[in-house]
Amino acid sequence: MKILFKNANILDVEKGELFLGNVVVSNDIISYVGCALPKENFDEIIDCNQNILMPGFVDAHCHSPMTILRGVGDDTSLSTWLYDNIIPLENKLTPQDIYWGEKLAVLEYLANGITTVEECYFDNDQIIKALSQSGLRARVGFGPSTRKENKDLNKFLSQQLGLFTNVDNTLIKPCVYVHSIYSSTYDDIEKCVDFSAKNNLPMSIHLCETLEEVGNCTVQNGGLTPPQYLESLGFFDRNSLCYHCVHMDKDDLQILADYNASICTCPSSNIKLASGIAPVYAMQNKSINITIGTDGVASNNSLDMFKEMFLVATLSKVSICDASVIKAKDVLKMATKNGAKALGFDSGEIAVGKKADIILVDIHKPHMYPHDNLISHLVYSAKSSDVMLTMCNGEILYRDGKYINEDTQLIYKKVNEIRERLKNEYK
Amino acid sequence: MKILFKNANILDVEKGELFLGNVVVSNDIISYVGCALPKENFDEIIDCNQNILMPGFVDAHCHSPMTILRGVGDDTSLSTWLYDNIIPLENKLTPQDIYWGEKLAVLEYLANGITTVEECYFDNDQIIKALSQSGLRARVGFGPSTRKENKDLNKFLSQQLGLFTNVDNTLIKPCVYVHSIYSSTYDDIEKCVDFSAKNNLPMSIHLCETLEEVGNCTVQNGGLTPPQYLESLGFFDRNSLCYHCVHMDKDDLQILADYNASICTCPSSNIKLASGIAPVYAMQNKSINITIGTDGVASNNSLDMFKEMFLVATLSKVSICDASVIKAKDVLKMATKNGAKALGFDSGEIAVGKKADIILVDIHKPHMYPHDNLISHLVYSAKSSDVMLTMCNGEILYRDGKYINEDTQLIYKKVNEIRERLKNEYK
Repeated sequence: MKILFKNANILDVEKGELFLGNVVVSNDIISYVGCALPKENFDEIIDCNQNILMPGFVDAHCHSPMTILRGVGDDTSLSTWLYDNIIPLENKLTPQDIYWGEKLAVLEYLANGITTVEECYFDNDQIIKALSQSGLRARVGFGPSTRKENKDLNKFLSQQLGLFTNVDNTLIKPCVYVHSIYSSTYDDIEKCVDFSAKNNLPMSIHLCETLEEVGNCTVQNGGLTPPQYLESLGFFDRNSLCYHCVHMDKDDLQILADYNASICTCPSSNIKLASGIAPVYAMQNKSINITIGTDGVASNNSLDMFKEMFLVATLSKVSICDASVIKAKDVLKMATKNGAKALGFDSGEIAVGKKADIILVDIHKPHMYPHDNLISHLVYSAKSSDVMLTMCNGEILYRDGKYINEDTQLIYKKVNEIRERLKNEYK
Repeated sequence: MKILFKNANILDVEKGELFLGNVVVSNDIISYVGCALPKENFDEIIDCNQNILMPGFVDAHCHSPMTILRGVGDDTSLSTWLYDNIIPLENKLTPQDIYWGEKLAVLEYLANGITTVEECYFDNDQIIKALSQSGLRARVGFGPSTRKENKDLNKFLSQQLGLFTNVDNTLIKPCVYVHSIYSSTYDDIEKCVDFSAKNNLPMSIHLCETLEEVGNCTVQNGGLTPPQYLESLGFFDRNSLCYHCVHMDKDDLQILADYNASICTCPSSNIKLASGIAPVYAMQNKSINITIGTDGVASNNSLDMFKEMFLVATLSKVSICDASVIKAKDVLKMATKNGAKALGFDSGEIAVGKKADIILVDIHKPHMYPHDNLISHLVYSAKSSDVMLTMCNGEILYRDGKYINEDTQLIYKKVNEIRERLKNEYK
């Protein structure tokens, strides 16, 4: 299968620039990028009409099936939201519910130009099933769960890893996911680190999301901050990705920098749950690989990387009183190339040899005019509804508002039924 | 002309609730709201398919023609942005440029469900011309300009008021707009207050937008904060609307409360320009009429009240570390009814006798499922692209992605040409 995208404004995420040109996708790979128009035979020629052709977004932190819980416990305090609303309902979710929740998330990902996700939830068999049907690229985490007792953690970890045996691992790969230091014992985290080392797996964790977490850790662990505590466990010896990192001082950030850990910032979740504003400018100064995630929709409440990009830039500016920091081109790289790097995928760039994860963004809408500074418009004015086409691994999955593989009406019906049932069960 | 909207999820902004029902619009007025289906003859029956029927948004602070300058000087400090980028280009704008900039803004307003705006710029003849063609409702400000010398201010004010003589004043009305205390002399503000009193006009001003403004005012005026300074001038004796109000303490807010002044918060502009986060929770506690504005797109960078609503709620939560404050239903009222009240229009509600400023919001999109807490979804998950229909004063102006009165291609061509010319002139 050979597809030509011609006459496109192609985003070079490394330079933060656009240039008019053409791109060829051969099967799952980008095989040509350039100004000259290739004169081969193509299965399809797509005239991009000068719209923006860019790498698909990498959503580096999500709990996708939480789409089922969209709007649950909104506008309540963090503890009321979590303990009185989210956890009681999560405990009633069946594996089938997880499957349909993941399917609903897939609809949002595709419509919003997200081609790769880092997935952290439970019932991974269902998640992998839905993701495999979707055509999306994903890294799926497993580890000690907040939800279920895993009496024999080593056995559970091996069993979970087995779920990936028959899966195309260029598209779906595992990582070891420790939910957090506050929901896992020292012993369990140690077991996860050992398991990761033996199986050469990367690790992920929620880290320094709230002040409460930082305070409790420091009190309970002889003055060690969460990053210091994890360092003592050898956590960072593995390739690691830390979600949130809202409350880190420069010494904490230095630890992550020293170990080449990546950070995933989730601004909409952090401000909606009143957790705080992450020190993205300080992270950038430490040359840490910064990625962007949506977090689950129960806390943010949509899977929209355009919203997150706007927030990463603008919250950084306001939090240090300087409108010049964290520029549009910086966040475009965070949302694409940096994410692919953190998750270990050979994508995130429109470049020859990379996996063909590509989206087309409409510039012929009022909010994208005048056409003078489209890099700025992508971050500060574009909306996820401007995505015209989403391709993952060379396959077009969404185009002109239509899903190629998904039955939207069935998914809508199922998630409404599940939510109704949960409400009735919880009464 | 009689139109029936049937089978709609109707927003009651006062209660913050939705109910299934039907709405009749007779000419420019809402003549029926209820659960029973009226059995009259209608010119058109619109089946809303349970989508959300709600009042159009009131954008209570904008400099619309600045659409021409979208993305200019982005990611630079506030002073570089303003003095090295915006003002030099503004000085080169011709009246024709203002007209086309306003037309581009109109396209965004209509597509994004904004039916009413407060307009503050210059060349009001052009602005009124474009607004009159648009069918939108607006309050247009005039006063001492930052741009041009008005040697005889009283003459200028009278001349400006004359522009409204032949305009339908149920749709377009004047107010006296003092840009700010830092760009106007004491004498000029006094003249404006006098003129407003004589002509029974409301007043608007940028107030406490930056710490620099507050500091300079206090130093230059014997310790008076900006609200205290304005109070000494009798500014608040008039019906007034204050934009931004980012840096106000409780005594400042008390002054505004005592005089029943309204506030327009503009969160995206405030965080993108690194001005700060407005104390919306404190404003609410003083029972001040809080409205929401986009500000001009040169600083935010799109005219999108969904983005602003999300930010008003979530920035309030994070700034006082409490996820329970400023609820979805609060911001829906700010963005509609409160705005109409501040601007003095008899709209902003789906209620019998009100002006028919109505929008229809699609709930059959992935990010609006499950359908359990649609009030939350409207604020935390909906996007401006979910607007299916925009009606102002009983007239449908935008529907299913199509503009009824506007020639988009001509507007796009003009604004691109203007921006190119400005770039060449500024080189």
